[in-house]
Amino acid sequence: MDPVRVALLGCGVVGSEVARLLTEQSDDLTARVGAPLELVGIAVRRPDRPRPGIDPALFTDDASGLVARADVVVEVIGGIEPARGLIQEAFSHGAGVVTANKMLLAEHGPELFEAAAAADVDLYYEAAVAGAIPLIRPLRESLAGDRVTRFLGIVNGTTNYVLDQMDTTGAGFDDAVERAQALGYAEADPTADVEGYDAASKAAILASLAFHTRVPGEAVHREGITGVSAADVAAAARMDCVVKLLAIGALVPAGPDGPEGVTVRVHPAFVPRSHPLAGVRGAFNAVFVEAEAAGELMFYGPGAGGTPTAGAVLGDVVAVARHRVHGGRGPGESAYADLPALPMSRVTTRYHVRLEVADRPGVLARVADAFAAHGVSIEQVRQQAQGEGEDRTAELVVVTHVAADTALSDTVSDLAGLESVLDVTSVMRVEGE
Amino acid sequence: MDPVRVALLGCGVVGSEVARLLTEQSDDLTARVGAPLELVGIAVRRPDRPRPGIDPALFTDDASGLVARADVVVEVIGGIEPARGLIQEAFSHGAGVVTANKMLLAEHGPELFEAAAAADVDLYYEAAVAGAIPLIRPLRESLAGDRVTRFLGIVNGTTNYVLDQMDTTGAGFDDAVERAQALGYAEADPTADVEGYDAASKAAILASLAFHTRVPGEAVHREGITGVSAADVAAAARMDCVVKLLAIGALVPAGPDGPEGVTVRVHPAFVPRSHPLAGVRGAFNAVFVEAEAAGELMFYGPGAGGTPTAGAVLGDVVAVARHRVHGGRGPGESAYADLPALPMSRVTTRYHVRLEVADRPGVLARVADAFAAHGVSIEQVRQQAQGEGEDRTAELVVVTHVAADTALSDTVSDLAGLESVLDVTSVMRVEGE
Repeated sequence: MDPVRVALLGCGVVGSEVARLLTEQSDDLTARVGAPLELVGIAVRRPDRPRPGIDPALFTDDASGLVARADVVVEVIGGIEPARGLIQEAFSHGAGVVTANKMLLAEHGPELFEAAAAADVDLYYEAAVAGAIPLIRPLRESLAGDRVTRFLGIVNGTTNYVLDQMDTTGAGFDDAVERAQALGYAEADPTADVEGYDAASKAAILASLAFHTRVPGEAVHREGITGVSAADVAAAARMDCVVKLLAIGALVPAGPDGPEGVTVRVHPAFVPRSHPLAGVRGAFNAVFVEAEAAGELMFYGPGAGGTPTAGAVLGDVVAVARHRVHGGRGPGESAYADLPALPMSRVTTRYHVRLEVADRPGVLARVADAFAAHGVSIEQVRQQAQGEGEDRTAELVVVTHVAADTALSDTVSDLAGLESVLDVTSVMRVEGE
Repeated sequence: MDPVRVALLGCGVVGSEVARLLTEQSDDLTARVGAPLELVGIAVRRPDRPRPGIDPALFTDDASGLVARADVVVEVIGGIEPARGLIQEAFSHGAGVVTANKMLLAEHGPELFEAAAAADVDLYYEAAVAGAIPLIRPLRESLAGDRVTRFLGIVNGTTNYVLDQMDTTGAGFDDAVERAQALGYAEADPTADVEGYDAASKAAILASLAFHTRVPGEAVHREGITGVSAADVAAAARMDCVVKLLAIGALVPAGPDGPEGVTVRVHPAFVPRSHPLAGVRGAFNAVFVEAEAAGELMFYGPGAGGTPTAGAVLGDVVAVARHRVHGGRGPGESAYADLPALPMSRVTTRYHVRLEVADRPGVLARVADAFAAHGVSIEQVRQQAQGEGEDRTAELVVVTHVAADTALSDTVSDLAGLESVLDVTSVMRVEGE
């Protein structure tokens, strides 16, 4: 099978991760596409600059030449030009395009989508809106039989980190921004994030998708978080709310005030702590969607970062490449991995065991021996007397460290057989840590 | 454009909603598919039974005959037969199939996917795993460039409601099940839910998708929640955990204990309250996914219910129908709605306004007048003196009811002009209620 030729435009934080994953996941990607993906070149401004871990022969400063010999072009340069021109060149050569460029899509989306349709090629952009969170396919395809009425999104990790710091530590805005900069969550010039420009681009893309219409970036009402004070955060807390920078889109029915349409806006807002968005902490992103049939949905995950964003880019590369290899139909079922379903002996977990034991010296030692005999290490033991006089027994709670599930269940069987253990009251696993 | 002929097999809670939405959303669906969707018939056991709101002429008891004249067959009968046979008939006629049948897919998935591939038709099943939550496309397509290492899912709303009741009210298992039955969240015979059979079918489907392999339903280790006591829930609370019924799949690397493979299991577990899954309340579902590049993702929404499930089915119907109309390529951008982006005057919201005012009688009345003049109704006012002697002022916090954003901002302008208002300290919107 002929390889699918992939050209990478840009080699920054996301681009270098795309290059790495294309190489490391090569076998998996080949199985999913049905043909190998071949990285044919990486266009950068300075091809002679050393970039560890990437074959230097791949670099070129001739982006146009590179685009001309690709089946799939991955644009991670950012900004308007030269990205826009190179994407148009890709279309004219019949190549599909994957981009993570929210600004370009917010400003020139309609013209690019039309050009892609005219050339009968794909234009995919999962990574442009909320980094690694799969949002585009759910909105565009899964909800294609439904009617989205509203979305509320936390779509900028920098501002969410800053507001979260202000909420949890009581820090002021400037201190929180400095902390975000120190951790690499905010740029030296944080304007695009804190003034809401980044969120506004994403809001325009989301609204266009959710409401099947064209919302240009400049139609988004935008307010940043620079005016949010520690006093605002405290006032929110008194109302049992948190302050979040939200990207909001809503379908507005026709009424006495005017026609049907959409409102799209980005601004800080109080959000009740009981709302699923209130629990979105740190640099995470989430988009809450209300649809007529589906009701309330939420999509949650890392909104930025080189590796997560590169993962989203690669998902799009696989989709575009599959279209080239297989023509139309969706990816179908790919069970290429053929992995065995393993028995519980291969599961590792922790146990929380409650025992009713005789309340006398030496019992704890017998119980501990039973765990040790199966190589299970104990994290915590709590013992409490219950009952009185003759009926006096003790409840013993044992929480283990991680061990093989069978070692744990064998331990429990042994415990049940101990003379001093009156009852194994309950056994529960502890997950999600 | 020729209509795409849709046959509906089954007309229970989900089926009747599919029929309703196909009619009510007809214009939107036509725009998304590129051709009208025509419901050509509904196969039921008793076609003469009256079903309000659906044209009686659509009903037939000849399911095979109906399948033979359809382009897309929607199977919402449930169970193994006759669903399985009818789906095979649909494939042999070249029709695509949409099913919400988790039991069938868990038991006969591989054979059905092979038959669909052999006939070169689509088999879609978004509604089979977690009702309205878009999970299949994200796992199958968005994460196609990534490697899923683990998932933890709350995939059964009945058991989640029961455990949530036990956690929040201290109820015992039997009481909580009775309450769930009274509210329609649990069936008269709740075995399939509380014993984990339903979750195990979904776990098998999710694991097959996430790990690109075949996991049959019987390979899933299954424990239900009938053994979970109020004491277990209390013990979890003491560890700052909640009890959830989890569907867990994990990729296990090769090691001294055996080959690489997957473990898939359903059982109750303690989950730390800080984990995003712990906040999934009532009958909601959520699936938490860990992938190498993407990191931690979560998908949240209603896991059941006629309307949400029907919405997911219709999304699949649109996808299958689009393939028939347009051949291969994905749905592309559909901006058919062409809705105007409306100004902020069409946004309705609530304001939280903090003012610094002179601390003297009559000020509150002037402030209240300003709101009333713009028709904005006040929900809450809080006034607190600050400073001392000559410098003594008051902080006034006003929270409004919902009003047009421009009425609110005009009010704030007027407030700033009042002689007794020394400063409008902050204005924040309240969203997400």
